[in-house]
Amino acid sequence: MCSQHPVTQTAASAVDSAPLLSQYEAHYDPSKVLKHPEFRILEADAPELKDKEANIACAYNPAHEVHMIKKPRFKPGKGEAIVHVRSTGICGSDVHFWKHGQIGPTMVVRDECGSGHESAGEIVEIGEGVTQYKVGDRVAIEAGVPCGQADCDPCRTGRYNACQRVVFFSTPPYHGTLTRFHAHPVQWLHKLPENVSYEEGSLCEPLAVALAGIERAGVVLGDTVVICGAGPIGLVTLLAAHAAGCTPIVLTDLVESRLEFAKTLVPTVKTVKIERSWSPEEVSSKIKAAAGTSIRVALECTGFESSIRAGILSVVFGGKVFVIGVGASEMNFPFGYCSANEIDLQFQYRYANQYPKALRLVSGGLINLKPLVTHKFALEDAVKAFHVAADPSQGAIKVQIQD
Amino acid sequence: MCSQHPVTQTAASAVDSAPLLSQYEAHYDPSKVLKHPEFRILEADAPELKDKEANIACAYNPAHEVHMIKKPRFKPGKGEAIVHVRSTGICGSDVHFWKHGQIGPTMVVRDECGSGHESAGEIVEIGEGVTQYKVGDRVAIEAGVPCGQADCDPCRTGRYNACQRVVFFSTPPYHGTLTRFHAHPVQWLHKLPENVSYEEGSLCEPLAVALAGIERAGVVLGDTVVICGAGPIGLVTLLAAHAAGCTPIVLTDLVESRLEFAKTLVPTVKTVKIERSWSPEEVSSKIKAAAGTSIRVALECTGFESSIRAGILSVVFGGKVFVIGVGASEMNFPFGYCSANEIDLQFQYRYANQYPKALRLVSGGLINLKPLVTHKFALEDAVKAFHVAADPSQGAIKVQIQD
Amino acid sequence: MCSQHPVTQTAASAVDSAPLLSQYEAHYDPSKVLKHPEFRILEADAPELKDKEANIACAYNPAHEVHMIKKPRFKPGKGEAIVHVRSTGICGSDVHFWKHGQIGPTMVVRDECGSGHESAGEIVEIGEGVTQYKVGDRVAIEAGVPCGQADCDPCRTGRYNACQRVVFFSTPPYHGTLTRFHAHPVQWLHKLPENVSYEEGSLCEPLAVALAGIERAGVVLGDTVVICGAGPIGLVTLLAAHAAGCTPIVLTDLVESRLEFAKTLVPTVKTVKIERSWSPEEVSSKIKAAAGTSIRVALECTGFESSIRAGILSVVFGGKVFVIGVGASEMNFPFGYCSANEIDLQFQYRYANQYPKALRLVSGGLINLKPLVTHKFALEDAVKAFHVAADPSQGAIKVQIQD
Amino acid sequence: MCSQHPVTQTAASAVDSAPLLSQYEAHYDPSKVLKHPEFRILEADAPELKDKEANIACAYNPAHEVHMIKKPRFKPGKGEAIVHVRSTGICGSDVHFWKHGQIGPTMVVRDECGSGHESAGEIVEIGEGVTQYKVGDRVAIEAGVPCGQADCDPCRTGRYNACQRVVFFSTPPYHGTLTRFHAHPVQWLHKLPENVSYEEGSLCEPLAVALAGIERAGVVLGDTVVICGAGPIGLVTLLAAHAAGCTPIVLTDLVESRLEFAKTLVPTVKTVKIERSWSPEEVSSKIKAAAGTSIRVALECTGFESSIRAGILSVVFGGKVFVIGVGASEMNFPFGYCSANEIDLQFQYRYANQYPKALRLVSGGLINLKPLVTHKFALEDAVKAFHVAADPSQGAIKVQIQD
Repeated sequence: MCSQHPVTQTAASAVDSAPLLSQYEAHYDPSKVLKHPEFRILEADAPELKDKEANIACAYNPAHEVHMIKKPRFKPGKGEAIVHVRSTGICGSDVHFWKHGQIGPTMVVRDECGSGHESAGEIVEIGEGVTQYKVGDRVAIEAGVPCGQADCDPCRTGRYNACQRVVFFSTPPYHGTLTRFHAHPVQWLHKLPENVSYEEGSLCEPLAVALAGIERAGVVLGDTVVICGAGPIGLVTLLAAHAAGCTPIVLTDLVESRLEFAKTLVPTVKTVKIERSWSPEEVSSKIKAAAGTSIRVALECTGFESSIRAGILSVVFGGKVFVIGVGASEMNFPFGYCSANEIDLQFQYRYANQYPKALRLVSGGLINLKPLVTHKFALEDAVKAFHVAADPSQGAIKVQIQD
Repeated sequence: MCSQHPVTQTAASAVDSAPLLSQYEAHYDPSKVLKHPEFRILEADAPELKDKEANIACAYNPAHEVHMIKKPRFKPGKGEAIVHVRSTGICGSDVHFWKHGQIGPTMVVRDECGSGHESAGEIVEIGEGVTQYKVGDRVAIEAGVPCGQADCDPCRTGRYNACQRVVFFSTPPYHGTLTRFHAHPVQWLHKLPENVSYEEGSLCEPLAVALAGIERAGVVLGDTVVICGAGPIGLVTLLAAHAAGCTPIVLTDLVESRLEFAKTLVPTVKTVKIERSWSPEEVSSKIKAAAGTSIRVALECTGFESSIRAGILSVVFGGKVFVIGVGASEMNFPFGYCSANEIDLQFQYRYANQYPKALRLVSGGLINLKPLVTHKFALEDAVKAFHVAADPSQGAIKVQIQD
Repeated sequence: MCSQHPVTQTAASAVDSAPLLSQYEAHYDPSKVLKHPEFRILEADAPELKDKEANIACAYNPAHEVHMIKKPRFKPGKGEAIVHVRSTGICGSDVHFWKHGQIGPTMVVRDECGSGHESAGEIVEIGEGVTQYKVGDRVAIEAGVPCGQADCDPCRTGRYNACQRVVFFSTPPYHGTLTRFHAHPVQWLHKLPENVSYEEGSLCEPLAVALAGIERAGVVLGDTVVICGAGPIGLVTLLAAHAAGCTPIVLTDLVESRLEFAKTLVPTVKTVKIERSWSPEEVSSKIKAAAGTSIRVALECTGFESSIRAGILSVVFGGKVFVIGVGASEMNFPFGYCSANEIDLQFQYRYANQYPKALRLVSGGLINLKPLVTHKFALEDAVKAFHVAADPSQGAIKVQIQD
Repeated sequence: MCSQHPVTQTAASAVDSAPLLSQYEAHYDPSKVLKHPEFRILEADAPELKDKEANIACAYNPAHEVHMIKKPRFKPGKGEAIVHVRSTGICGSDVHFWKHGQIGPTMVVRDECGSGHESAGEIVEIGEGVTQYKVGDRVAIEAGVPCGQADCDPCRTGRYNACQRVVFFSTPPYHGTLTRFHAHPVQWLHKLPENVSYEEGSLCEPLAVALAGIERAGVVLGDTVVICGAGPIGLVTLLAAHAAGCTPIVLTDLVESRLEFAKTLVPTVKTVKIERSWSPEEVSSKIKAAAGTSIRVALECTGFESSIRAGILSVVFGGKVFVIGVGASEMNFPFGYCSANEIDLQFQYRYANQYPKALRLVSGGLINLKPLVTHKFALEDAVKAFHVAADPSQGAIKVQIQD
């Protein structure tokens, strides 16, 4: 599950009270979609699915169904653009909302809710006052739009992932970007460099998560790291850690094929195939042996208690375990060991200010995201895409819907 | 219990292997004391207790006894001085070693072991090659002496509290500084400024712990903090946080009289008297109410799981809980909440490079340690001092032995 | 001269181009005042000066005159409040604009321009949508209002003092806050705590400069510092460095009476009265002698080349000279010495995110700004206030206009 | 000229006084070589040059001569090893000492002085107490040996490049490592990984300089940088910045062929060929155009005033100019511009704690140093090597002597 949708209680209040809706919360009120006369749930053979002008989308609902819907196509507001979404990746959280109906106590699917938040596309219409963009521009869509008000501490201080009044697309109740036409404030679009494809643009969203982790973990040139978990976030983190000059990089997983895949991305990575029977102490001793040197940082991308513990036991005095993945509400950890070895635990929640960097790194050739896309579907086949993404036997890394 | 003696497994290895004893480990081999012909355990009326030239000390043993011992008085080695210890504070860990015989799996009282590591005194003899000090100089004794070798990563990089070959006085098997005459490498002595007393010099040891925490927690001018626990480390941390310009400072404890005492030290501190029946959520809501603003850092000085949890729930998104106290080997914590709010957990183990700063702060009038000493005893009455320190009904903050 | 108005070329572009005016630049267009039918320059005996409802202000012009003007009293816009300005301090830059007509090549007085940017007052009217404030609220006015747009890198990343489209009051062409009624976006107001007076609220502006310097210089508890210059910014920096736990603090100036005044603020400060004939080497040797220990940071508050050089020579290997004051466009410095001693030079330009902290520190009793106000004038006597502020023989530290 | 030998006054005192020689200063007293009966200056046809057991070396003297000398072959002391030096690079400072006889006021060639400090070799003999190494081990030689005493602030705090009592080989009066047999404390040797050659091991010395700069400049993944100067240090910095994930990287130089060479190292680098006639403003506008985005850090590797100024003008508000190269004692800089744009100036002096990282990066394949060696000579031909290194028309990047 990605760090966008943590299993958690209400976020801590960064400001004493924030009772008002942000302009964006009001603007993206899902009832505007759900109560719109054009809204409907589409049967598998609905003719709208063939209509390239129809604003179709893929949604989950409280009955754990996933299906296509038809949404209205809105006109762009002031400062907005309509983006024809050309590429969207399915995130673990999308699957989780479909299958389980909620993530944590507050993010609950209570109605039909459009999925998707990893998207890039082409501007097809611009609203009043938009001068930075024109029709035809290719853009990545930043998946969250914070309130941006000066009296919101997180927004004013540059840590906008803490904004309590953010609209994060595909987090209920807000509809997602796995839709044909999405209206977005242009200030939260990012122009794609010429050599960056829509596919890569949409992958900048999970990359942003990894980059935020790398940045806040303070991982730098020459650092020795272990990355726990070779799922999509683990692999993107691997690419980012390699680009950041980490060496050695140890990567762990329970599944050998994922580790093999990782080696095709970064041939120098040292892999540790974990057996379920191993204790964290055994895992950490394998990790240390693979590294051959002391490890400063564990980048934890599984969210499992046993993996976090193995990470703690693997790093040197003064090291840290930086948790990018999310996991259970409650967890046990070796307090005494952390205390005697000054091992910091840190956590990443979504990201702030990472898209421009993500695009620079992809455009500059330092991170190649393309191999991560293992499956592609047309928009009208998005339901099939979801079933592939949800089926471990398919071995998908990243399933994309392209339009 | 102070952070010098954590309940923990073996410290993580900062270097791949460190099989050899440091020069100091060999030099302070306790068998040199225990097998010395002059060594003996002293009865309560032993005449040596009246002999001002006798090197008497206070020791605990595996039978959970505390008594006076007579040790040889060694000559100073090369680069060493003999310090007549004039003031020593009793640390919670001293009491713990006496009562429980061990701290963690590795620090075990296996023989008579001299207590004390919070000491200051007067140089009475200097060894070969000592030019920085002369007889009569007043000094604080840094309680740990690391190996100092260039191929020890922690020592070479300035993080010597991670040195695996450190001699830390009063941590078994090494005898402590609660003795009349202590031999110490002069490089690990710190000259007392004229306006700093022996009493204050010895209190620089617990102050060093707090200062290390403040430094590594990144606590700075204008920070909003909660300090959990008003014991000796909590109170010293309070003094340090106040000197660092924190405001507001909230302080919690279960005991009202400790909070009252804290207000005499820092009148502006906002106190929260915790009831045992309160949940961490209730505690955190009282803390937030007392602060009246969002709290960036919790300085945890109790080591209790419930207190740590209350700290986590009290700080703002992006805040941190910095654990100065030590606690149980294993602990539960709200992983999901930490993840969704980017709340870092950090830990302090002993200290490095804090004595010069501690002495500057005391000498410069920014931190007044004197009120912390609530009870004083002569060296020959050290056993009584231990009984007072171990008895909560005495309400002692810091018990000192002076000679 | 304060760091708000550096002698400099155009600021470096943080974004590639920023051709459009921010909403605030348009809103505060000075022609709205200057071309308004109510606008006029007031004679010394003009009856408007006695009219407590008239929006009078104090302005400078290209002819190097300072006089009272009458401005329209605008209605509050959406999200705005009208503040009755109750206290305003005169900054060195105000005097400089009056006497010299410009600061740097871009900040040029080209018309009548209202002065003042250090202000606090009372809300007398609120505009549409304002819910956080009500009439009667007491507020400090943040002196600069940045564009706040998400596609402005500085604004989005929390470093809004770099915003190229900021409106900074009293920096030409924008009129200042030394006026009776000032319209301000409420998001850039800061509520005064009950125990903070208007006088102190207005002093939070220069305090914000010092706090920004302290924060970015990384000055923390126990740091050893020298503050160069005992003018208003130097003295505010002294208060802040003392509150931050610096010790020792050495303070230099050419004028003995300023140093004496400083000792009444912070009795432990060590002062060095500099003679004009001294070389930087001599100055630095006096500074080092006064400190009695190595100095980590020089907080430079004069902007003079010789003082900066003395600061460089005073700090330890790896130390820094942090320039809060501003100075000449071009300057010579000892490159080789800086290089061989890893001495960083850093600079502060205005501030970001400092007001809440400033108010906390004043309200919490850690910084007492009141003694800095040496002279007070009524608003109708603001011209006299300017003459006192501009006359060194008056020995003013901070001249305030109160209404 | 490399940053090991800055043109400067005496280094700032990190400790109040350091009158005593370190054990290493005494141990490496050059008179032990110069007054030894075996010492002699060798004619070009001296038979010793053919004797593979003779400890020959290459030295400069106050008469600006460079020639071969014969030195005694010492026995290893306690904790020492004798290294057969197998590869040594010539640094710009070696040439400078030969040609100009001094660097700065304190580093003066007053006698025959052996050259070279970029070396790797094979252990041929070990002294008492050495257990970490055995004969046959392949090692890089750390070029400076600090005092390592606990009462030396720089040594105790991990910033040992500030140690005032360091022995830095080939900095007068200490003889260098361009010799056949060099005695070195094993704690300051670094084992070469199997896949790292002597050639690469010796190049870890200039790499350590660049890595120290990268680390202290805070250059991280995704940073946008300009590197000023494509000489040896500039090129090594280019390799390090690329490995650290910087993009884009702009590189400047006056010589087109150097830029072409740089492109063979890092094909994505964007180069700017500077014309001598260009002003710093023109240079910076070309740099900005090449970057196509705002630049956060300038890594200055020339030490020229005009280049530093161009760097200042090239970086964004809040950026920094980090000077790795060294230059003139005195320099002019645009103070006002730095102040109005918060542009930090920082400097690197030698390095601390960089060798292990350098070896990891080379061994891990992240930095390929081999192409930098453009010329190789046998030890007996070291004088020829010096002449090639000193002749710009030869276009040498790095000249190595191998034995």
